[in-house]
Amino acid sequence: MLFFTQCFGAVLDLIHLRFQHYKAKRVFSAAGQLVCVVNPTHSLKYAPTRCAAAQASTEQGLLPPCHHHEAVHDPQLVPCTCPLFSCPWEGHLEVVVSHLRQTHRINILQGAEIVFLATDMHLPAPTDWIIMHSCLGHQFLLVLRKQEKYEGHPQFFATMMLIGTPSQANNFTYRLELNRNQRRLKWEATPRSVLECIDSVISDGDCLVLNTSLAQLFSDNGSLAIGIAITTSKVHSAEAEM
Amino acid sequence: MLFFTQCFGAVLDLIHLRFQHYKAKRVFSAAGQLVCVVNPTHSLKYAPTRCAAAQASTEQGLLPPCHHHEAVHDPQLVPCTCPLFSCPWEGHLEVVVSHLRQTHRINILQGAEIVFLATDMHLPAPTDWIIMHSCLGHQFLLVLRKQEKYEGHPQFFATMMLIGTPSQANNFTYRLELNRNQRRLKWEATPRSVLECIDSVISDGDCLVLNTSLAQLFSDNGSLAIGIAITTSKVHSAEAEM
Repeated sequence: MLFFTQCFGAVLDLIHLRFQHYKAKRVFSAAGQLVCVVNPTHSLKYAPTRCAAAQASTEQGLLPPCHHHEAVHDPQLVPCTCPLFSCPWEGHLEVVVSHLRQTHRINILQGAEIVFLATDMHLPAPTDWIIMHSCLGHQFLLVLRKQEKYEGHPQFFATMMLIGTPSQANNFTYRLELNRNQRRLKWEATPRSVLECIDSVISDGDCLVLNTSLAQLFSDNGSLAIGIAITTSKVHSAEAEM
Repeated sequence: MLFFTQCFGAVLDLIHLRFQHYKAKRVFSAAGQLVCVVNPTHSLKYAPTRCAAAQASTEQGLLPPCHHHEAVHDPQLVPCTCPLFSCPWEGHLEVVVSHLRQTHRINILQGAEIVFLATDMHLPAPTDWIIMHSCLGHQFLLVLRKQEKYEGHPQFFATMMLIGTPSQANNFTYRLELNRNQRRLKWEATPRSVLECIDSVISDGDCLVLNTSLAQLFSDNGSLAIGIAITTSKVHSAEAEM
């Protein structure tokens, strides 16, 4: 009996996901775009210590040491870049992706243009929606965060970070696009490196920022569809042509 | 002596305006775009009474009566649409433009694409930057407002309103674009009619919303350049083709 109940639950979940996928496809009608349903994770940490350390060492041109292992000062080691947890892991930049996939179960998607469908936008802050995006030979981390920068006034912050160095990040431009009800909002910028701190990007407001009211205007039944595209920077393309 | 001092002041102002004009041109490098320097006006009123009346009557399909003349119920008369002042004027929709120009000294610019250069972004809220834009046979009102929706946290709200009816407004799409430092933010929507209340558009957040930090990222020396473009709506264009 329990088995049948679980099967029925799984089928219902599948139908629900399929329905959300269909809705997102309808919004972003460009053929061939991959739609990924991303469920929220209630954030467990907002520890400023790692950020402060990461910021200081990035400014000095070093990779940040992990605050959990302050005795270790190997500049080749990177702390866990997952913004969700105070994770004690640290390792080389090349193995960050496999750590995020295996330990934090963050999905990875292929393709230059994808649609990120964040569900349950109504959940209280702080909440994160996270996915990895493999494109143009690199991996990017898309983070959508609901956070109360000002107490009692939650806002949504969306940004893209390269799993690579700041100088590699300068070679790319990312675009986030919301499109619903005859309204369209586009944000284009250079991705930050995961060696910089996601928390400082958000506190600086240097990302796509949505008030709750604007997020509701773009949401459909509690889900927010964000179209994502990554291109190589024009400046660098022009330099490459010269 | 006073005459020479005034002349010198005027020349300095002219040089300053010319410099700001040049800067905005450099940002929006598309040839033929008209740049208009818009100085701020500290708002003198935020009376909700007119808005509530306007909203109720617009929902009923009537033109809003002016709250200063509550005895008058002629549905052909429109109160002053200038969001700056509690102006007792009322008149027909056709003469709103001349009232705004003559009484409130609001400039009017021609052209499908213009650049709105708002100066002195640092001034305390509430502050408005307003211009009229004549395009595609109609006049539009662009309003940039600095307002504290949440006490102590000023935000910038930018929207475009048609000096016409809501059904006329549905024929158009407006685009506001900020572009600086390898960052680009675009907002596209259907303009509202001036018969709807600007205050309610802003309180609904159904417009381009900028946090102070984001506004600073897009500002250059205290001025914010906003590229404006108006087109006829695709839906209506498609209908016209059928």
